Amino acid sequence: MYRDPVQSLEAPSLPSSATAMRPLRVGMIGIGTVGAGTFRVLARNQALIAGRAGRGIKVVVVCARSLARAMSVVGKEVALTNDPMQVATHPDVDVLVEAAGGTGPARDWVLAAIRAGKHVVTANKALLAEHGNEIFAAARQHGVAVAYEGAVAVSIPIVKALREGLTANRIEWVAGIINGTTNFILSKMRDEGVGFAEALAQAQALGYAEADPTFDIEGIDAAHKITLLAANAFGMPLRFADAQVEGIAALQGLDVACAEQLGFRIKLLGVARRRQDGDGADGVELRVQPALVPANHLLAHVDGSMNGIMVKGDASGVTMYYGAGAGSEQTASAVIADLVDVARLDGTHAAQRVPHLGFHAPAIHDHLAVLPRAAVHTRHYLRVPVHQAQQIEAVGAWLAAQHVPVARVQLACAQQLPAGGAPQVLVLTDAVAQATVDLAVHALGAHPAVAGPVVSLRVEMLEG
Amino acid sequence: MYRDPVQSLEAPSLPSSATAMRPLRVGMIGIGTVGAGTFRVLARNQALIAGRAGRGIKVVVVCARSLARAMSVVGKEVALTNDPMQVATHPDVDVLVEAAGGTGPARDWVLAAIRAGKHVVTANKALLAEHGNEIFAAARQHGVAVAYEGAVAVSIPIVKALREGLTANRIEWVAGIINGTTNFILSKMRDEGVGFAEALAQAQALGYAEADPTFDIEGIDAAHKITLLAANAFGMPLRFADAQVEGIAALQGLDVACAEQLGFRIKLLGVARRRQDGDGADGVELRVQPALVPANHLLAHVDGSMNGIMVKGDASGVTMYYGAGAGSEQTASAVIADLVDVARLDGTHAAQRVPHLGFHAPAIHDHLAVLPRAAVHTRHYLRVPVHQAQQIEAVGAWLAAQHVPVARVQLACAQQLPAGGAPQVLVLTDAVAQATVDLAVHALGAHPAVAGPVVSLRVEMLEG
Repeated sequence: MYRDPVQSLEAPSLPSSATAMRPLRVGMIGIGTVGAGTFRVLARNQALIAGRAGRGIKVVVVCARSLARAMSVVGKEVALTNDPMQVATHPDVDVLVEAAGGTGPARDWVLAAIRAGKHVVTANKALLAEHGNEIFAAARQHGVAVAYEGAVAVSIPIVKALREGLTANRIEWVAGIINGTTNFILSKMRDEGVGFAEALAQAQALGYAEADPTFDIEGIDAAHKITLLAANAFGMPLRFADAQVEGIAALQGLDVACAEQLGFRIKLLGVARRRQDGDGADGVELRVQPALVPANHLLAHVDGSMNGIMVKGDASGVTMYYGAGAGSEQTASAVIADLVDVARLDGTHAAQRVPHLGFHAPAIHDHLAVLPRAAVHTRHYLRVPVHQAQQIEAVGAWLAAQHVPVARVQLACAQQLPAGGAPQVLVLTDAVAQATVDLAVHALGAHPAVAGPVVSLRVEMLEG
Repeated sequence: MYRDPVQSLEAPSLPSSATAMRPLRVGMIGIGTVGAGTFRVLARNQALIAGRAGRGIKVVVVCARSLARAMSVVGKEVALTNDPMQVATHPDVDVLVEAAGGTGPARDWVLAAIRAGKHVVTANKALLAEHGNEIFAAARQHGVAVAYEGAVAVSIPIVKALREGLTANRIEWVAGIINGTTNFILSKMRDEGVGFAEALAQAQALGYAEADPTFDIEGIDAAHKITLLAANAFGMPLRFADAQVEGIAALQGLDVACAEQLGFRIKLLGVARRRQDGDGADGVELRVQPALVPANHLLAHVDGSMNGIMVKGDASGVTMYYGAGAGSEQTASAVIADLVDVARLDGTHAAQRVPHLGFHAPAIHDHLAVLPRAAVHTRHYLRVPVHQAQQIEAVGAWLAAQHVPVARVQLACAQQLPAGGAPQVLVLTDAVAQATVDLAVHALGAHPAVAGPVVSLRVEMLEG
């Protein structure tokens, strides 16, 4: 058991003042899923956490809409208020935990806390993807930490891995399954052969998808997260507005089955890839899309609502990080880890030990841009409905003539197809610029052999 | 590009003295695989690393047996010596990188460096598993950091995940594939149906196993690593001497095939599990053994020389960490990450920010003991050679009478068996104490139906 915080610090060189030894005092805005989970885990594992942090971590004030509901969670020892700004600037608060969500008002509270000299911990990916550049600049100016492990893959310490664990490496790419809702839906579609709408309904019934699932299924949530990862990987500002985002709402069960036939699984991937090619492309691919992954690849085995992220470094090779991507206590795990990081240094002169986006300001490539969609370079899967099966040859020849490097052409198995449906030509290409594929797909629509809309999806051949 | 170290620190609250801004000066003992890799990556990614660390990291002196060979690696700008103690106590050195290996002499160098006020970075798992308690106590006393990310799974930042990323959690267990050599051999045995000796020979030919492979194949290397993980997970001293260690040298190809038939794969697992059972067991299972893992479990898909480690926390749930478990630059990735951690704080009063084994001294459970083999509680796989196939019923009934909870009994498929070999009864048990299994297996040897030695292996039903 944890015995005596006053004697608990290992390093005699740490300042032994009362300031360093008293509990870290937390103000919390929001006591919903994330806030209540954080409070609960802090209470349950109090002695253990103090034993790791070297001091206690104590919630002293909470802002909530319903004070009665808040009191039912935090009890009578914690001060309560309806006024978020009061928590953000409270004289007894060392760290603000922003657990309210949203962007506009949350931005104001966080900036107010920073200006009042408070550290901030948040799991709010939308806030940081959209306002992070401004928030981190303010934090730098005021010498406080803004920690956000919970904003990417909650309990998986991927921000720590990128900012601290892989610092030796030139990162080549980061790619992963970073939205549990869509991964649950895609797993259902594959395992049970159901369509998107039915899988979504099941996800909603089980609480894996919200009543309004737009942010998840349109890929926006994943885009927030890959934006944060890209900045930490490559030393670039947050460029959420430039990310190319495609969700899974238009994905057809037929393509899930055809991908399977070809030896692939479809996953919603966030991908950030540094490109410095011989042909002059210098920038970052920053994109979210449903993509084919080889069935024997580890990412293909990340199922249900789980998340999995791979990072390729020039020295480390590929490393992967796997775990729950959502959940009350899972998010609390990350929020509290951030609080322990602060507790281990708050009151010293080094509280802001790690730069917010992994690189110190002069080393951030302000000019490093997101490459346009046309320049994205991957393999592709095409599904081309034709009037007659023997037109497979015409399709292959025509794509080759359009400079699409065809690697493999075959017909979809009969059992994949709806009764009476058109034969489907399946094409796998070698790596090719998206511009070439887009042109060919567009033109193919007018080819006399083609019986319906052509589907194209990216194929990600990741190492590892 | 990294421009100006003097202006590069984000936090204005960091001391802006010359001490904090000058490069971190490294002395290195050993310039073999680990040392040369570290030097090479530091040189190649110099600007990038300085951009992350806020200052440069510079090797100033190297100790090597052959100065000529060392100079061919590090060039003429780095001081060279044959005397390790000179590096350990060199006045121009801030951090000692111990990259020589071994235990006795390395212990003396590391302790000398600590007493001289140097931080230490090492990837030497044997050194720490055997002398870590003494080394960390000395480091605490002298207020320096001893960092060892490279000592567990090289490029996978698992020490950082446990000590910093999962600090909110009561850790229930850590389990993983933490030796690349044996995983390569086991993958070969399964994929190609070869025996242990042939798979080992292939591993040696390809450089995945050493000429004397004892440390790897006997499980000692994995035991060093799980000892380090257990201490960080549970807040206990390093108890390497108490770990139960079983390697793969006695593993038969027949059992790899029979496990496959039952839906499992055999992996050499390091397992550390906290037990506080109703029946009074209070301690830690600390063990390395070849074990059956369900074929659809993510750990079953960690193949070849890769490593994968799972951690179960009460808030985080299961998280997993995957990557290369060996290699020159892969180890360098971890060594340099440790150097960056030091660089970000050296010269401040908080250099020893994180306690060496994750918990501050008063919170370490000195009394927390390793449970004896007899008390280990898992499911089991038994293979019982019998004279006649119909004796399967006698075996099942006899085991049940011996209080072994039999869950499944079946015969090995004929194609698994050598021509003319005895029929083999395969048994899967429910969870049971090792003592019960050991007794039953011993007694079963005298049963008239039994035609040869009975094989028993643990079955790990890990969540995740």
